Amino acid sequence: MNLQTQSRPLSLRDVQITDKFWSKEMELVRTEVLPYQWNALNDRIPDAAPSYCMHNFRAAGRKNRERKALGDAFSEPKFTKQGWVFLPEDPQAPDDQFYGFVFQDSDFYKWIEAVGYSLTQHPDPALEALADEAIEIVCQAQLENGYLDTLYILSGTDKIFTNLRDHHELYCLGHLAEGAVAYYQATGKTRLLDAACRYADYVCCRFGAEDGKLRGYPGHEIAEMALMRLYEATGRERYCELARFFIDERGARPYYFDLEQQNAPAAPDELRYAYHQAHLPVREQNEAVGHAVRAVYLYAGMAAVAKETGDASLTAACERLWNNMVRQKLYITGGIGATHLGEAFSFPYDLPNDTAYAETCASIGLMFFARRMLELKPDRRYADEMERALYNTVLSGMSLDGKSFFYVNPLEVDPEACRRDERKFHVKPVRQKWFGCACCPPNLARLISSVGSYAYTENDSTLFVHLYPGGTVRKRLGSQKTPVRIASELPWSGNVTVSFPEGSPEFTVALRIPSWCDSYALSGAEGARQELRDGYLYLTKAWSASDRLTLTLPMEVRVRRCSPLVRENIGRVAVTRGPLVYCLESVDNGEGLFRLSLDPSAPAKTEPGTIAGENVVTVRMPGFRMRLPENESGLYPPYAVPEKDPVILRFVPYYTWANRGENEMTVWVESE
Amino acid sequence: MNLQTQSRPLSLRDVQITDKFWSKEMELVRTEVLPYQWNALNDRIPDAAPSYCMHNFRAAGRKNRERKALGDAFSEPKFTKQGWVFLPEDPQAPDDQFYGFVFQDSDFYKWIEAVGYSLTQHPDPALEALADEAIEIVCQAQLENGYLDTLYILSGTDKIFTNLRDHHELYCLGHLAEGAVAYYQATGKTRLLDAACRYADYVCCRFGAEDGKLRGYPGHEIAEMALMRLYEATGRERYCELARFFIDERGARPYYFDLEQQNAPAAPDELRYAYHQAHLPVREQNEAVGHAVRAVYLYAGMAAVAKETGDASLTAACERLWNNMVRQKLYITGGIGATHLGEAFSFPYDLPNDTAYAETCASIGLMFFARRMLELKPDRRYADEMERALYNTVLSGMSLDGKSFFYVNPLEVDPEACRRDERKFHVKPVRQKWFGCACCPPNLARLISSVGSYAYTENDSTLFVHLYPGGTVRKRLGSQKTPVRIASELPWSGNVTVSFPEGSPEFTVALRIPSWCDSYALSGAEGARQELRDGYLYLTKAWSASDRLTLTLPMEVRVRRCSPLVRENIGRVAVTRGPLVYCLESVDNGEGLFRLSLDPSAPAKTEPGTIAGENVVTVRMPGFRMRLPENESGLYPPYAVPEKDPVILRFVPYYTWANRGENEMTVWVESE
Repeated sequence: MNLQTQSRPLSLRDVQITDKFWSKEMELVRTEVLPYQWNALNDRIPDAAPSYCMHNFRAAGRKNRERKALGDAFSEPKFTKQGWVFLPEDPQAPDDQFYGFVFQDSDFYKWIEAVGYSLTQHPDPALEALADEAIEIVCQAQLENGYLDTLYILSGTDKIFTNLRDHHELYCLGHLAEGAVAYYQATGKTRLLDAACRYADYVCCRFGAEDGKLRGYPGHEIAEMALMRLYEATGRERYCELARFFIDERGARPYYFDLEQQNAPAAPDELRYAYHQAHLPVREQNEAVGHAVRAVYLYAGMAAVAKETGDASLTAACERLWNNMVRQKLYITGGIGATHLGEAFSFPYDLPNDTAYAETCASIGLMFFARRMLELKPDRRYADEMERALYNTVLSGMSLDGKSFFYVNPLEVDPEACRRDERKFHVKPVRQKWFGCACCPPNLARLISSVGSYAYTENDSTLFVHLYPGGTVRKRLGSQKTPVRIASELPWSGNVTVSFPEGSPEFTVALRIPSWCDSYALSGAEGARQELRDGYLYLTKAWSASDRLTLTLPMEVRVRRCSPLVRENIGRVAVTRGPLVYCLESVDNGEGLFRLSLDPSAPAKTEPGTIAGENVVTVRMPGFRMRLPENESGLYPPYAVPEKDPVILRFVPYYTWANRGENEMTVWVESE
Repeated sequence: MNLQTQSRPLSLRDVQITDKFWSKEMELVRTEVLPYQWNALNDRIPDAAPSYCMHNFRAAGRKNRERKALGDAFSEPKFTKQGWVFLPEDPQAPDDQFYGFVFQDSDFYKWIEAVGYSLTQHPDPALEALADEAIEIVCQAQLENGYLDTLYILSGTDKIFTNLRDHHELYCLGHLAEGAVAYYQATGKTRLLDAACRYADYVCCRFGAEDGKLRGYPGHEIAEMALMRLYEATGRERYCELARFFIDERGARPYYFDLEQQNAPAAPDELRYAYHQAHLPVREQNEAVGHAVRAVYLYAGMAAVAKETGDASLTAACERLWNNMVRQKLYITGGIGATHLGEAFSFPYDLPNDTAYAETCASIGLMFFARRMLELKPDRRYADEMERALYNTVLSGMSLDGKSFFYVNPLEVDPEACRRDERKFHVKPVRQKWFGCACCPPNLARLISSVGSYAYTENDSTLFVHLYPGGTVRKRLGSQKTPVRIASELPWSGNVTVSFPEGSPEFTVALRIPSWCDSYALSGAEGARQELRDGYLYLTKAWSASDRLTLTLPMEVRVRRCSPLVRENIGRVAVTRGPLVYCLESVDNGEGLFRLSLDPSAPAKTEPGTIAGENVVTVRMPGFRMRLPENESGLYPPYAVPEKDPVILRFVPYYTWANRGENEMTVWVESE
């Protein structure tokens, strides 16, 4: 069999997710997160710091009209900044200045992206009308020349592209493109897509290797992958070229960020470049370093360019960076970015549980990277980690009621330490309502709403099933689309069925066999050619309505250890089942989780449970609780075999933790 | 027997330490530390930031002469500060301004204190002549009214006592008093003592409850215990009253530090007061909090005042704070201050090994506190911890060659993490030459030179032997002094002999039985009345030359566990022998110390060893090394019983670590 290996995600209009698990998540986004976020963008959340996002767009629109009326003789206001965020004297009635974080525009773009995805799964005319109105406000803010970032439109266009390192104009371009393509693909409407193209065209004119152009690149990556998406949606090669230019320029010496900051005090600190992944040309990078979100956004962009251009050196760099990340810098929960200092990757095998950063957005970015690696080459190594990130750290980012969010996803929490130990002040023992710097909640909204584009990709011959959300996927075959129905009970059990319409042409269904099961059982594939390669089971046939594939992925409770290269987890074990990592909470197990221990060889028992209304599978395993001394015997008594009482440990899925009030949590448990 | 319990330290002129262990330490201080420090005080260390200490005294002396010549019409220069430290434009030729840290004067006072102690143990006319010259320079800097702090003498006397919280004028008074008394007791010379009294008299005039006086107290404590010492040396009650005033005022509301900072931005943060132990009146404090050095300096002052005044509520507060510190906040090495943020006590049982602060000075301060608790009431609980701090964290502070120093004394070090993990940047894997903020090296110099005043105290009837450095102690008996000779092999073996001159009057020798031995053997006490109370063996007799007490304190290797309330040490054990805590270093045990484990029940073997020329007793115990996987098996493989190879673990005394180059170290080892 000569199987075409590269693939692409399907339009979400061709992927209808209907299973209970994901439908619930998506409905939370539609009914809770999107309306809340819209209010946040419009500064209508009581007791929350205003976002100023829509204020800035409206003010920029007014300024544009004024500018036109004055024949462009408009005088620019002064660029005034207070600390990291622009704040008005009267937050209730800000004047027509830019306020909020420099990247505030992107909050709208993330929202509109999630709205687009959501509309594909659940038509909502009221939401769509609101979105169209909002898009109009945004488009009014765009300059005649296509530039669109309210920071400089409101604060001084002479400063445009003078601080790429910190001021996120290209980051906003990236989110604009992502949002615009999503909304266009969902609705067919081009208003925002046109705006994105105009801004991208302007950037194409300003950036490049030619004389007189800027040889810069984004301080916060995302434009790379977003431009590739804009290219795929429009077919305009210049967007692909711009993405490649950004990737090729990054890390060139002298450092662009130094050149543009040449009047600022010199800070010859290599770490500064690594934070932006600009310490080396990307093809020479071997280690995942710096700000974790930026890193995986970059790597996703690199993979997208590599796939389009067939650039083997770029593919090789992606593989090296992937392997480095997965082998040395990945939490068992799919979290990345072990240190909150710089929200960054730490050094190899430094994976502290209690001071972890493991930002929700970084694991979302890991999924972006993984999906693009899968598009390059289907290999379950990528899908396994994409799944790990999704079902653990990403889902952990949102409460089960969709109303509060984690940025930081630790693997061990003592609420007392979060309050009293400044090293852990970044770790919150309960999810927070919304944040001033609102990256994770809208990122979660767009990820959850588009889970279908991570679960399935296709090429001419093959439908790849990477994850198993249940629903219907319309596989393109020539000019036809053939609906393939997938039913699954993941993450609670590994039973999957795939069914087909009558009389479909021959095509291949490639089903991922996850690494969490040692074996699998397949029935109903009679007459299909079968091949197992890189963790995917390729089944080829001209399918008919009588074909009904039944795939059984045994989902045993599995106790896992950690590589002995990781200092933090020596002598400790973690419990997993299928794609889910489990954890202990003190609400189930009493206080002092660090005094509990587990016999890894003891039998595990699964049991249905309910957490904050969510039906889950819990795990019970026999273990021990170390006794506290009855008498004050000092901190350092002579050794005695610790006295332990047998207990039943009750594990719950990691993503459900902290939904029952503030309490201790741990993923890793002492091993007997 | 009705034994008088309170006691006082002897003059060091009556305590001659001659044993090999302590003689070597003291000689290092005399031949290495004191000369180096004198050069540092005079800015003569190449490649080190200048101290400006003696510069400031000389400049203040010149200004005083000018002031007198001008009939006090001298105009004050402007108070200009750059960041935390005053720096001249030309460090080689500073003008007559104040430079360096605000507490820079105290560096000289610590030096002169150590010089005083050293002269009692080793007469050194050249050193004494140098000290006399230096004292003259310092005395020339004093104002006519007695005020003596070069910061304000040089920068504006109108600002005197306007920022007690941060500007250390009373801290400098405290160190001046300590240094002056030490030098006076060593040499009989009163020049510096007079200066200290004049400054103290000036402070007595300015501070107090009376109208028109300042109701403030030191931001950094030490004046409290130092004034008590000045009182004991001079008999002037006003110094005792001032010490008590400072103690009684601390924590009164409204906070004095707020009153004096009333033009500064309000920061209503309770932690701010706790940092200075000013969150509550001292008699209401139950928990050791805030900056650890400041805390134990305060507690030592409280104990000193409590002893003198018989203030039961103050004694009770001291006991509560002692117990809290020892039961919840003390490392096994005698380190205190678990967090580098504020160099402070952390919350109860939070004793991280790898991010510990455990400042050398804090353990020295713990010894100050412990000695004063022993003066109040002899109880081995205090002496045990004093000994723990001395032989472990304090001695660890100085390299075996006396040339480099630790401020921070961690219990677990990975040099890679110290370089790459910003949370551990304060932890140094090797000792440093000298520091800009030079507190620990001079503090070590004065502590080591005066170890005799921690080892022995006396009252009319009793000589208390708290520690066992070998030497001769001249016990005051009426108007006579009777030399008692103590020989010991501590810390290497617990054999102690005590011998007496012919025909001494009846008196009591109280020998501490350390808690690290379960039993003891005594011979040669025939005819003596014996009583064992609170860990002290009281032996009373009219001693003669034929009396020779032989005390054997069995010194077994002991494996210790940690209270299960301490999260960091669950499943781990530490090795101790006598007063010494042991540790593993990778130079002896290979890399990856966290993969080693110990069978606590296995037999231990002691063995003589040499570390950087120092003869020590090492400990060998059988243990295991976890094997690294031969193949890349991912970070999180299914559980399997870890494969381990038997090894012999080689432990060395903690205080000798990092004397053989940079390497990993750990005190706590995984337990089998």
